[in-house]
Amino acid sequence: MGNPVITLLTDFGLSDPYVGILKGIIADIAPNANVIDLTHLIPPQNIRAGALALDRAYQYFPAGTIHLAVVDPGVGSKRRAIAMQADQFLFVGPDNGLFTFVIKRAEESHREVKTFLLENPHYRLEPVSPVFHGRDLFALIAADIAIGEFPTDKLSPIDKLQVEFDAGDLARVIYIDHYGNAWTGVRGVSQGTHVSIAGKAFKHSESFGFVGKGEGFWFINSVGLLELAINRGSAAATFGLKVGDPVQIHRQRLN
Amino acid sequence: MGNPVITLLTDFGLSDPYVGILKGIIADIAPNANVIDLTHLIPPQNIRAGALALDRAYQYFPAGTIHLAVVDPGVGSKRRAIAMQADQFLFVGPDNGLFTFVIKRAEESHREVKTFLLENPHYRLEPVSPVFHGRDLFALIAADIAIGEFPTDKLSPIDKLQVEFDAGDLARVIYIDHYGNAWTGVRGVSQGTHVSIAGKAFKHSESFGFVGKGEGFWFINSVGLLELAINRGSAAATFGLKVGDPVQIHRQRLN
Amino acid sequence: MGNPVITLLTDFGLSDPYVGILKGIIADIAPNANVIDLTHLIPPQNIRAGALALDRAYQYFPAGTIHLAVVDPGVGSKRRAIAMQADQFLFVGPDNGLFTFVIKRAEESHREVKTFLLENPHYRLEPVSPVFHGRDLFALIAADIAIGEFPTDKLSPIDKLQVEFDAGDLARVIYIDHYGNAWTGVRGVSQGTHVSIAGKAFKHSESFGFVGKGEGFWFINSVGLLELAINRGSAAATFGLKVGDPVQIHRQRLN
Repeated sequence: MGNPVITLLTDFGLSDPYVGILKGIIADIAPNANVIDLTHLIPPQNIRAGALALDRAYQYFPAGTIHLAVVDPGVGSKRRAIAMQADQFLFVGPDNGLFTFVIKRAEESHREVKTFLLENPHYRLEPVSPVFHGRDLFALIAADIAIGEFPTDKLSPIDKLQVEFDAGDLARVIYIDHYGNAWTGVRGVSQGTHVSIAGKAFKHSESFGFVGKGEGFWFINSVGLLELAINRGSAAATFGLKVGDPVQIHRQRLN
Repeated sequence: MGNPVITLLTDFGLSDPYVGILKGIIADIAPNANVIDLTHLIPPQNIRAGALALDRAYQYFPAGTIHLAVVDPGVGSKRRAIAMQADQFLFVGPDNGLFTFVIKRAEESHREVKTFLLENPHYRLEPVSPVFHGRDLFALIAADIAIGEFPTDKLSPIDKLQVEFDAGDLARVIYIDHYGNAWTGVRGVSQGTHVSIAGKAFKHSESFGFVGKGEGFWFINSVGLLELAINRGSAAATFGLKVGDPVQIHRQRLN
Repeated sequence: MGNPVITLLTDFGLSDPYVGILKGIIADIAPNANVIDLTHLIPPQNIRAGALALDRAYQYFPAGTIHLAVVDPGVGSKRRAIAMQADQFLFVGPDNGLFTFVIKRAEESHREVKTFLLENPHYRLEPVSPVFHGRDLFALIAADIAIGEFPTDKLSPIDKLQVEFDAGDLARVIYIDHYGNAWTGVRGVSQGTHVSIAGKAFKHSESFGFVGKGEGFWFINSVGLLELAINRGSAAATFGLKVGDPVQIHRQRLN
């Protein structure tokens, strides 16, 4: 058995010590945990962007990895705090849609998802700050799970988590990444497909190395989704792409 | 005994390999150390912002944690390099005010603070670069302490460190965080207090989940200070708040 | 023997989970590896900036450290994937010039450099994504090396790697760092040297602590190169310096 792995995905940013504080709490409880940052630059309170980033990453980790995700605009209100077992992984965070895509993937593959409400007094550092559950609740829980303390028999199972984003809105630009590449929610397109966004047609290329500098193209990205890019430039800046732009797809060849 | 924990707080930024270099040096001397970033985005040479971030975070770490802080505009000049024991923690860095709030907290609680001058030849990688003490001096020292080499009997104790910031300037905005929340230095206000900044009155809310989208409010933050925020937005951008803005507090109810 | 150290230098940025994915793959194969970020903010696809940052940092790590560098505009095309042994370190990445300065340093000191082509089927997670070799190829290889699996006898040695940047262009600003300091490629200047850039003369100072606030100066930086800075400010912003600006050097005193 290796050391337990805990990943962190938040909108805490990198300029304040908030992420470091989570790690301090984890180091205190689970000193052997290997804590790995997924990203802390989810746009503030953007649950959807958090859900997308988590979906893109969670399967590349060792079985048993604990994914702690905190993008939590409802902190302090009645939104529930939950833990979830799915696809050999554990997830901890607020029940606000962050785990939508994980749940959908598991359901599509008929794999079991178990969810638990985290209201057992076992899991509370009193007084819990009404504004920083990442610190006072979620980090503690993730660390407890990492050292083997996850009393699922004492936790209330819950039936349904919040699932926020339906499949219907996926034929759009769903995310602009660091390179200015535009991710879309479109899956399963073949090479001959005609793709256009915002009135502009894009040609297909397998990768960056096959197109000229400054040339735009679409490709199937590393998780199987249609993505738009430009060689040595930002597709978003060059073509004015933004989240929500609709994608037109016609299964016919460009002429 | 778990592995020793070393935290890093600097103004080195994240675009250059400077932080990685510190970690390389630490890995060489103390391969088992668990090195945790507090933040490296302290505004360049802003000692006060560094002191505030350190204050906000240092107590959440395991006892014995070594906090290495380098915001060091006086590097190469006569400012002293020091180590300090306070509140179950060790601190290493320049003697320029970075540890002001740690010292104040310890003094307020009548806890002992021990300080040492780091001029023993034991602690020098020769030649010490006049511009990068983080690398040539402080990282070495932190790593040495992590492996148990801290010969306090051979170090010169010193009486008084630099303490830069007095309590008088705390009824102000002291920091704008990643979310655009405005931290103030005001402590111990109760719910009925009337709070205004820059002529604008703010209502109280316990947390984000209880106010409408776009609504501003004040709350007691996770370290007990009065903080201003807006639900799903940036209070600093919306209300034009900036560091130094005075905070008016009247212990009477809003009508 | 300590745990193996793997460093990461990429242009992946910090807003997406790409770096976290690399670490997940490494944690799965080499759970004891100590993974250290050099930087992930190399300007997208800027091989030269990546080569400079790697050069500045790689020697501060324990012998045997595996430096994984991925700035890879040619991904998916015919550029080769390579591993290299040089100066007690291992390097893994694309053969596109990223390792130029490492190779030059080794050659100048008559130290041996061994290079291997990574096309053995041992090193492929099929199907390899044409756009994300960092994930599907390089991270796997670095992790395999970390657990002792580096079958150099089964790999094809190659004679010459891409070396992109010659010595002739070094009397220029080669990099602007987080502080706005301008690195140059000029080495071996003495204190009395007259230095000017873009028509402006700079005086010498050993370090920041010896010049007034807002005053510009040149100094010999922590790797021996001439660098321009300003005390408590950005030299690049103040003097309008940018990468490529020529540096004039006259070995005579300022009068």
